[in-house]
Amino acid sequence: MTTATGLSFDQKLANYADLLVRVGVNLQPGGRLFIWAPLDGAPLARLVVERAWAIGALAVTVEYQDERLSRLMYDHAPEAALDYAPTWKLDEPMHQVDEGYSFLTIMGSDPDLLAGADQERIARHSRVMAQLYRPFNERFSTFEVNWSVGAMPVPSWAARVFPDLPPEQAIQALWEAIFVTSRADQPDPVAAWQAHVAQLARVREHLNGRQYRALHFRNAHSDLEVGLADGHIWAGGAGPAQNGVVGVPNLPTDEVFTAPHRDRVNGTVRASKPLSTRGTLIEDIQVRFEHGRVVEATASRGQDVLTALLDTDEGARHIGEIALVEHDSPVARTGLLFYNTLFDENAASHIALGRAYPFTVEGDLKAAGGNDSLIHVDWMIGTPDTDVDGLRDDGSREPVMRGGKWAF
Amino acid sequence: MTTATGLSFDQKLANYADLLVRVGVNLQPGGRLFIWAPLDGAPLARLVVERAWAIGALAVTVEYQDERLSRLMYDHAPEAALDYAPTWKLDEPMHQVDEGYSFLTIMGSDPDLLAGADQERIARHSRVMAQLYRPFNERFSTFEVNWSVGAMPVPSWAARVFPDLPPEQAIQALWEAIFVTSRADQPDPVAAWQAHVAQLARVREHLNGRQYRALHFRNAHSDLEVGLADGHIWAGGAGPAQNGVVGVPNLPTDEVFTAPHRDRVNGTVRASKPLSTRGTLIEDIQVRFEHGRVVEATASRGQDVLTALLDTDEGARHIGEIALVEHDSPVARTGLLFYNTLFDENAASHIALGRAYPFTVEGDLKAAGGNDSLIHVDWMIGTPDTDVDGLRDDGSREPVMRGGKWAF
Ligand SMILES: [Zn+2]
Ligand SMILES: [Zn+2]
Ligand SMILES: [Zn+2]
Ligand SMILES: [Zn+2]
Repeated sequence: MTTATGLSFDQKLANYADLLVRVGVNLQPGGRLFIWAPLDGAPLARLVVERAWAIGALAVTVEYQDERLSRLMYDHAPEAALDYAPTWKLDEPMHQVDEGYSFLTIMGSDPDLLAGADQERIARHSRVMAQLYRPFNERFSTFEVNWSVGAMPVPSWAARVFPDLPPEQAIQALWEAIFVTSRADQPDPVAAWQAHVAQLARVREHLNGRQYRALHFRNAHSDLEVGLADGHIWAGGAGPAQNGVVGVPNLPTDEVFTAPHRDRVNGTVRASKPLSTRGTLIEDIQVRFEHGRVVEATASRGQDVLTALLDTDEGARHIGEIALVEHDSPVARTGLLFYNTLFDENAASHIALGRAYPFTVEGDLKAAGGNDSLIHVDWMIGTPDTDVDGLRDDGSREPVMRGGKWAF
Repeated sequence: MTTATGLSFDQKLANYADLLVRVGVNLQPGGRLFIWAPLDGAPLARLVVERAWAIGALAVTVEYQDERLSRLMYDHAPEAALDYAPTWKLDEPMHQVDEGYSFLTIMGSDPDLLAGADQERIARHSRVMAQLYRPFNERFSTFEVNWSVGAMPVPSWAARVFPDLPPEQAIQALWEAIFVTSRADQPDPVAAWQAHVAQLARVREHLNGRQYRALHFRNAHSDLEVGLADGHIWAGGAGPAQNGVVGVPNLPTDEVFTAPHRDRVNGTVRASKPLSTRGTLIEDIQVRFEHGRVVEATASRGQDVLTALLDTDEGARHIGEIALVEHDSPVARTGLLFYNTLFDENAASHIALGRAYPFTVEGDLKAAGGNDSLIHVDWMIGTPDTDVDGLRDDGSREPVMRGGKWAF
């Protein structure tokens, strides 16, 4: 099979593996790489492993994930099993961070995996796991090491994105969407990424220079003022881990984002796309914030899951991320709902309920007003009619976006 | 699909999963289970997991093995990667033994996986891994916890066993062979296993009662005297782990076996079946022992692999197991070469180069004359014309096997 760019499927797959290793985690000679892959992800995982050895890796490990096992646990395990979380499970990931491992996640999930499962059992087990892995996740999210997230189609996911295509064609169509949005279909994908991250760096640096007190976000259905954390830092695209190695944590990525102030968000906002989480599609989310807290939240579908999400902990009712994305980004141009945040968050500006990323503020996250929670759930609020203003300390306002496009 | 016993494929698969959990590791309520499964072993692994939850397990983990990754490492990794073995990799399995985990291995390998690969790189890495995991393997092989080994077809393996069948039929035929030899095709497989292990216990107890100094093994091509370790114990079939829980370590199993004395094996022996190891089929092995040591070893094919095997370490030239199997065992009756020791060792009496099992002697293995090595490789020597005598301390001899059948 070939497409307009003239590359065969195998060439694009090889390009994609290459991007994950050389652009995503930017593996160095002598480096160590840990890969999470879906159970049927061997064809891609093995290509990634070959690239890693070719670069001169010292260690490469693949852990294949059988997501049906989670479902079996939620459906059949005794209560006590949901709480089973021996501390020694943390040792191996901590040693890996100590050794400077890079971590590559290849996503590929059934969006309906947890549909109809017991929400309370899921929440209970998720809480236990989040607590157990917290020390690892903290080192991870502060980029003590390089990590990156890519994706590959699995039949259930492809069928959800392309419900009208037969299974094999749905898989192929989803691969094409992944290749296009990840630039793996281009003749020189690494060069294309260099140009792309340079553009995101320009936006990031502009916003960092302005240090807005707040962003004012408006469209036909939303009027939201998002106060930004003190000493907030705009991130996005490529960035160095603490070891100085520059990687790209998400492929694709078209967003710049920073930490809101947990108590300084006010107004109403309506989701511009459905939110797919925990096996449920939550539609037409509408939320009202007062002093940073969600005080009203409705949805036309999935209201119970939305409520459970907001009730996870105190921080789940505050937001930890505001992200800006042009309305005609590559993901947006596909016109697809991917049912996967890695893609969907790059289709539109968005906010995230829950935890802020520590690297999006100077100094201590909490002191800066950054939010904390066990969850971090992005949902889309950007539209082609969205205007965003930056509010300065002196009361003046400057255009940041007009009609969903950069205004500077 | 149904067979003579009237059970459908799905019923037999369910029976097999049930046998692995209830007869193999004999998982108890509140127990923990770790499962190694081939990458395409999800259908069986998930059934096993469901059984485990139904029994009331506290923890169930599946680790899927992509054996192609080993091959990629042998072919492409830098030298240093072959020696990479951080001690923290041992922590998790040791904690699992501490917690009393049961371990279930579902084999399913390409017999040709390592064909043509660099034998020295394989030996080097295997040595490093054996050293690293030695403390775990010692606790494992002394049955500090329950463990069991089963198998499932993978396409490459099925094609090797049934080279004349199309892929799908080869898989089905290999499944049938696994079901038949494992009694999963029987209406009450658990009861069938109870009867079978009772029969093996009768043989074992007879031999333990006789405490032969040596076995004299004869057929048209072999004349071998195998001195037995001091205080040797015949094992086989079902047995209790140190926790008292009775399991069956191999499904199928039709052997009784014990530890030879490492320095008291003399004579010549010819293999009665090819030995499939490290991706090579070694044919027509002929070996001469002097004072327990292999002083001559030839093969019509795979001589280099045989030599490399014998040169692994000093103990690799001595034997650590002598096993007796009737010539018409269920595995023998299939008439198949399985290219997998789990099955093939149950087709005929055999010996193993390398390490003896500590539980096959009273007290200290070394003091008893039991052999030690990084390897343990079984190969078949039994035939329908094999006679075995037991030699007593007083110089008398008693029939143990006549024409490949028990003689007591
Ligand atoms: Zn985002
Ligand atoms: Zn986010
Ligand atoms: Zn044996
Ligand atoms: Zn053996």
